[in-house]
Amino acid sequence: MTSAATPAPSSPTIDDPAYRGAVLDLLGILAYGELASFSRLAGDALYAPDLRGQLTLSRMASGELSHLDVIEQLVTRIGGDLEAVMAASSDILGDFDARTTPRDWWERLIKTYVGYGLVLDFQREVSVRLDPEVRAVVDDVLADNGYADFVVSVLEPVLATDTQLGSRLALWGRRVVGEALNVAQTALVRHPSLVLLLTGGNEDEVEATKMLNRLAGGHARRMDRLGLTA
Amino acid sequence: MTSAATPAPSSPTIDDPAYRGAVLDLLGILAYGELASFSRLAGDALYAPDLRGQLTLSRMASGELSHLDVIEQLVTRIGGDLEAVMAASSDILGDFDARTTPRDWWERLIKTYVGYGLVLDFQREVSVRLDPEVRAVVDDVLADNGYADFVVSVLEPVLATDTQLGSRLALWGRRVVGEALNVAQTALVRHPSLVLLLTGGNEDEVEATKMLNRLAGGHARRMDRLGLTA
Repeated sequence: MTSAATPAPSSPTIDDPAYRGAVLDLLGILAYGELASFSRLAGDALYAPDLRGQLTLSRMASGELSHLDVIEQLVTRIGGDLEAVMAASSDILGDFDARTTPRDWWERLIKTYVGYGLVLDFQREVSVRLDPEVRAVVDDVLADNGYADFVVSVLEPVLATDTQLGSRLALWGRRVVGEALNVAQTALVRHPSLVLLLTGGNEDEVEATKMLNRLAGGHARRMDRLGLTA
Repeated sequence: MTSAATPAPSSPTIDDPAYRGAVLDLLGILAYGELASFSRLAGDALYAPDLRGQLTLSRMASGELSHLDVIEQLVTRIGGDLEAVMAASSDILGDFDARTTPRDWWERLIKTYVGYGLVLDFQREVSVRLDPEVRAVVDDVLADNGYADFVVSVLEPVLATDTQLGSRLALWGRRVVGEALNVAQTALVRHPSLVLLLTGGNEDEVEATKMLNRLAGGHARRMDRLGLTA
């Protein structure tokens, strides 16, 4: 049967195979992002110069990982498998880490601040067109965990007295964000379904480019919070 | 007022300053142990050869860290400060890690299996004379998290076909346990209050030596589970 009438625009439903596939892709990216954030924050914790910093970062790491449970429940409910959807994103970071090896604690902080902030923004960008059930899970996963505030509180007093460090970290932030934007672009190319979520079916390259520009804008605001030029 | 009568033996109470001090020492050691286990398991996860192992170890790491909350609540309730009691144990590992750098994934697994098992046994040994409230928290923290079963399930099939690896790992296990027993001994020397908990006020060196022997026995049983000679 065919129908000549154009269907009315409505909230996407999980029964639509294209939407379901896009949601599974998105959940895989979110889950892999949580695992990667967990590893990064747990690794950073080892370098924290004091016990308080070590505890704070370790607890944030655990908080990220706890999101995996709610993601896994949703993936299972819509007939997917957590490991399978994660595997599709598992090489998305490519050589990001090899290209951005921090030389000290400050560069490490900035790397995670820049990279983590951009990943969150990216995930929020591709999460705009969701049905309410998926939306609730994604909002929970992408909630602010206080990491940016932590970095600002640690770096602000140091940067206030050390302008040389500020210049070095501004430069370093530019390098990290360049690599992170490459990762975002690769993710869009590898997962056309994300562009579908982003644009609502309109596979528009212009929309993807605009999104990358918005990501760069978010980065500039983050650096500005530290008084650094992006 | 003085009393000539000897008080009847009873469960220790937190109002006794010596007992309270010992409990805070113990909770500090438990908390630091949880943080160290978190870091080790999260670090091991990065080396896991597949996504399943990475997820399993990351989740176990988070599980360890979640115990910090219940420890912190108890520390606060009895008038202590989590960071302060942890700081007293923060250099207890000394150069354990520098002396036991694993050369591959198998040595890494065995190192955590041996070290983690011994730390748990040690913590259980010094947790025998506790009042019910502290006991409940400690039992919760020291519950089996399934790590040993995970290692056995991973290593058993590999060791069944590779006797050379078995010999190497048996040797490696001996080296790790030697260093771990040194750490346990240092902990007892640094925290005489633990000996108090172990012996019930009887500061008996023989009791401490017996305890170290029991730790060695626990290690032998763990290696035996893998079919390796301790």
